[in-house]
Amino acid sequence: MGDNTQRWNELAAQISVDSIRATTAAGSGHPTSSMSMAHLVAVLFADHLRFDVKDPHYRGNDRFVLSKGHAAPGLYAALKAAGAFDDEMLMSLRREGSPLQGHPAPIKEMPWVDVATGSLGQGLAAGLGMALAMQMDHVEARVWVMLGDSEMAEGSVWEAMEATAFHGANNVTAILDMNRLGQRGPTMHGWHGDVFRDRALAFGWNAVQIDGHDVDAIDRAYTGAVADERPTFIVARTQKGHGVSFLQDKEGWHGKAVPADKLDAAIGELGGDRHIRCTPPAPIDVADPAPFTPSSVERPVYDKPIATRKAFGDALAWLAGTDRDVVVLDGEVGNSTYTEEADAVAPDRFVQMYIAEQCMVGVQTGLQAMGKKAFAASFGAFLTRAADQIRMGTVSRADLRLCGSHAGVSIGEDGPSQMAIEDLAMFRALAGSTVLYPSDGPSAVALTERMATLEGISYLRATREATPVLYGADDDFPVGGSKTLASSDHDDVTLVGAGVTLHESLAARDMLAADGITARVIDCYSVKPIDAATLRSALDDTGLLVVVEDHRIEGGLGDAVLDALASTGALTGRVHKLGVTEVPGSATPTELRAWAGIDAAAIAAAARDALGR
Amino acid sequence: MGDNTQRWNELAAQISVDSIRATTAAGSGHPTSSMSMAHLVAVLFADHLRFDVKDPHYRGNDRFVLSKGHAAPGLYAALKAAGAFDDEMLMSLRREGSPLQGHPAPIKEMPWVDVATGSLGQGLAAGLGMALAMQMDHVEARVWVMLGDSEMAEGSVWEAMEATAFHGANNVTAILDMNRLGQRGPTMHGWHGDVFRDRALAFGWNAVQIDGHDVDAIDRAYTGAVADERPTFIVARTQKGHGVSFLQDKEGWHGKAVPADKLDAAIGELGGDRHIRCTPPAPIDVADPAPFTPSSVERPVYDKPIATRKAFGDALAWLAGTDRDVVVLDGEVGNSTYTEEADAVAPDRFVQMYIAEQCMVGVQTGLQAMGKKAFAASFGAFLTRAADQIRMGTVSRADLRLCGSHAGVSIGEDGPSQMAIEDLAMFRALAGSTVLYPSDGPSAVALTERMATLEGISYLRATREATPVLYGADDDFPVGGSKTLASSDHDDVTLVGAGVTLHESLAARDMLAADGITARVIDCYSVKPIDAATLRSALDDTGLLVVVEDHRIEGGLGDAVLDALASTGALTGRVHKLGVTEVPGSATPTELRAWAGIDAAAIAAAARDALGR
Repeated sequence: MGDNTQRWNELAAQISVDSIRATTAAGSGHPTSSMSMAHLVAVLFADHLRFDVKDPHYRGNDRFVLSKGHAAPGLYAALKAAGAFDDEMLMSLRREGSPLQGHPAPIKEMPWVDVATGSLGQGLAAGLGMALAMQMDHVEARVWVMLGDSEMAEGSVWEAMEATAFHGANNVTAILDMNRLGQRGPTMHGWHGDVFRDRALAFGWNAVQIDGHDVDAIDRAYTGAVADERPTFIVARTQKGHGVSFLQDKEGWHGKAVPADKLDAAIGELGGDRHIRCTPPAPIDVADPAPFTPSSVERPVYDKPIATRKAFGDALAWLAGTDRDVVVLDGEVGNSTYTEEADAVAPDRFVQMYIAEQCMVGVQTGLQAMGKKAFAASFGAFLTRAADQIRMGTVSRADLRLCGSHAGVSIGEDGPSQMAIEDLAMFRALAGSTVLYPSDGPSAVALTERMATLEGISYLRATREATPVLYGADDDFPVGGSKTLASSDHDDVTLVGAGVTLHESLAARDMLAADGITARVIDCYSVKPIDAATLRSALDDTGLLVVVEDHRIEGGLGDAVLDALASTGALTGRVHKLGVTEVPGSATPTELRAWAGIDAAAIAAAARDALGR
Repeated sequence: MGDNTQRWNELAAQISVDSIRATTAAGSGHPTSSMSMAHLVAVLFADHLRFDVKDPHYRGNDRFVLSKGHAAPGLYAALKAAGAFDDEMLMSLRREGSPLQGHPAPIKEMPWVDVATGSLGQGLAAGLGMALAMQMDHVEARVWVMLGDSEMAEGSVWEAMEATAFHGANNVTAILDMNRLGQRGPTMHGWHGDVFRDRALAFGWNAVQIDGHDVDAIDRAYTGAVADERPTFIVARTQKGHGVSFLQDKEGWHGKAVPADKLDAAIGELGGDRHIRCTPPAPIDVADPAPFTPSSVERPVYDKPIATRKAFGDALAWLAGTDRDVVVLDGEVGNSTYTEEADAVAPDRFVQMYIAEQCMVGVQTGLQAMGKKAFAASFGAFLTRAADQIRMGTVSRADLRLCGSHAGVSIGEDGPSQMAIEDLAMFRALAGSTVLYPSDGPSAVALTERMATLEGISYLRATREATPVLYGADDDFPVGGSKTLASSDHDDVTLVGAGVTLHESLAARDMLAADGITARVIDCYSVKPIDAATLRSALDDTGLLVVVEDHRIEGGLGDAVLDALASTGALTGRVHKLGVTEVPGSATPTELRAWAGIDAAAIAAAARDALGR
């Protein structure tokens, strides 16, 4: 046995021991899933991951993504060995306030983690995003992604497999910890590594199979992965709970800590406690970035009707031309969302993700972890495909800039499969999210510009049809603000709209005026945060709000308005919500707004009815 | 050219002509995507799809799923040729009130469509669900699924590819209409059919490549698919807009109708208008089902604390044992959601979907289309993975019975990646959905029992921890109802909770009582529909509602309460919402509820604060 062999095996044993110690102290966690990858992680951290533990955000660092996030104890044990933190910190696993959460999350005190994992099948796409950021910046670092075999059932993994090969991200290495056992029993394919190898090959990867507890074979596989011109998929046959007789390859131990009375026996079988330190290889030097030449694209200005999706695309092209950090992702609908304009301006920072929304958002999460301002766009309806990735974005503290076009029944003839009518509910419910809904070209430009500087998840809801210009090019649209488009000191009712329903509200105001009813009209372009003070004043002044949205009646603008009003104190007055309550069909936009009861006539009727006039 | 050849080619030409005619009349739609599959559909409908057009729900019918739903005109043209409806109906495509929507939807007047498509990548899983239903019922019918090449980028397709092979659904044939062009340009793999063939083989399928406009080759491929013991994947090389010189294999024609001034030229190139009828082969005879022997599992009864997820599993096992139509799907967490108990009772109606939630819900959609009462369960957090499939379930008018376990921060140490805290928002926003949230064993059983008879999408939110028993085994829990657990004629405040927060509310009531404050407590176990009348009375009686939920503050119980109150007329009083407002970490359930400000102490403090006491 060579020196390296012994060194790696000792480090692996320590990672297993520490995974057991920390989870037993916590009383819960996944030691056996950590032990199956202990040798894979040990060799990686000891001799292949070029990484400065003291400067985890250094641009030249290789990156490690633990896609099988439940094996967090193993990652933390490796980070302890590498000097990221001490044993006391390790033993705080899963305690309140500890940065060592049950699944890895990139909170401030855990800077060695770039993206949150724990919802399976998401790590490879995030890793691809990091790898693409390295390529865009001409940084020859690498990304290593540790996958579990259970998560290979997730389609998101195959989206990422395809995209990694398609985009030539040969700086990605995926390691499959094939330990044969899932949460409740055997996986579909057990130790049939040929299945995974054949699929990886068919998806355009280099693929090798190894014994995942043979450190020399692991070392050779990592060296081979770096040398290959393709991304490499390493199928490593392992044992869950490896090295402890009563855990090894046994069912019934997923997500269970070793009981205290068996702790000594388990550690004893692994050769006892150790205090090994490892120093990962030094990261590569990074050259200063090349000078950046802004494009000549100017901030768009409109004086004629235009679709907000087009204004978004125009604005994004302008931003991409002026900010070298902007990256644009398309879900193969760039001629509908107009992200194709950014492609024309900055093709090296435009990534075509094809129809794979989960991968699109996963890559976006990886890109932003590397400092990119990543925008992604698709039909709002199809962003639901990435709902889990977007949700995990909140745990990753990711800045995800998303545009959903073709909102509402107003798309018309294509029908309900293409209509985003639950999108506001989805984005509003996310921690720290910002939800924006412009009604015209200038507001769409201003809000897209705002998104470039927002933290967290921001969502711009865009409309398919052209809408008239309401605002000037210099008008300000602060997040959390609103615009009152019509107001007097004797308003009978307040109409609250956003996007297309703002225009319907304005038309309703004219109808009501003909009946002698004076309506205030508020543009709630910022659905979250929402302008509670203005809404409260309107309720106090008029006693009646009619809130209208081209969205399901639940979870969207109407609920946001009610929530805002409730937050300002005792409620007095009436709030009448209009929104989509049935499943739409195909028809013209005008017909569908009438059908849904969200057009000008319906708004006016609701106001008249509430006022008894 | 044989008789069949000419007959098939003529029918294909008619399908192309009718696709063009209908879309030009509509002014929008996807003729070229219909034309690429015209020969594939013609041969299928003429001689392979064993289907009684007059009895589309007959159990012995083969089924056809148009996964590439935008090619709806081609499907409708084939249905017209088969006698489902007349040319006048065909020409109503995309008009208001027409059952011929822009993408297929199984509304009452379109009984030849089983599941809605149009969000890409969803048809194969639905087809698998139908095929499994046939197998469960020992019906030797087949499912034919038409896929587009763009949608092969969706991971959901690969989940379904894997599951189809794994479950031995050799009664599934997938046809890939590889027309090389997506929405905005070429697909990733163009006409490199080897890519798709190799992947299908690696995923356990039989695979063949053909010229998709060669009707004899198509006929042979279909015959071969039926004969093979594996599911068969037919890679058909086609041309978008085939048969019309100015459309054929041309970019820029996706989703565009042929302009009126080019209509005659296009139809002329296809040999002019035709009026061919085809009669699909007769379906197989179906034997009467074998007698059913109910299991001896009884309706569960509890008198000790139990987790609602366990009560759900117990109830589901009881239902599976007593109702032969119940089918249970697990996302490889059956030992957490306790669906494993149904597996023990009815293993032939339990389908292990592994960690592939999109496929799970897609299969569920297919199963219910065949009359099964399909329940599916996973962690609530991971049901977000299938958000688009669930959304499409509303368009499919599907009865999807879903249980999401491990709701809220109350799961504790596993941390935020595993916590469902946006699930109520997601499910509430869906058309016609029912959202249920039991607080104890008896209510969980009663509500699970209710789900078996509900239409549309129903969601049961389940808790990880055991909770005390509050109700009797015979208590009734109507959908849309609530339970008032404590009430007097001098209540100072009303506490509204559900699930775990109901128990916190009851504890808060005791705390407040010690301060001389009398609190009413309402269990909103039915979050949607919600008991507006009881909530209104409570607001009128007490003037203050404190609504508390283990969920994000947006879109859940609090918003549902506000919406209900607003719907009952003018608002007078205060509603104070408590919910999760930041991203949680790992800690004990008790610590996390305190952190989130949703525990008894926080509820009592909010009530005292609002009352100024």
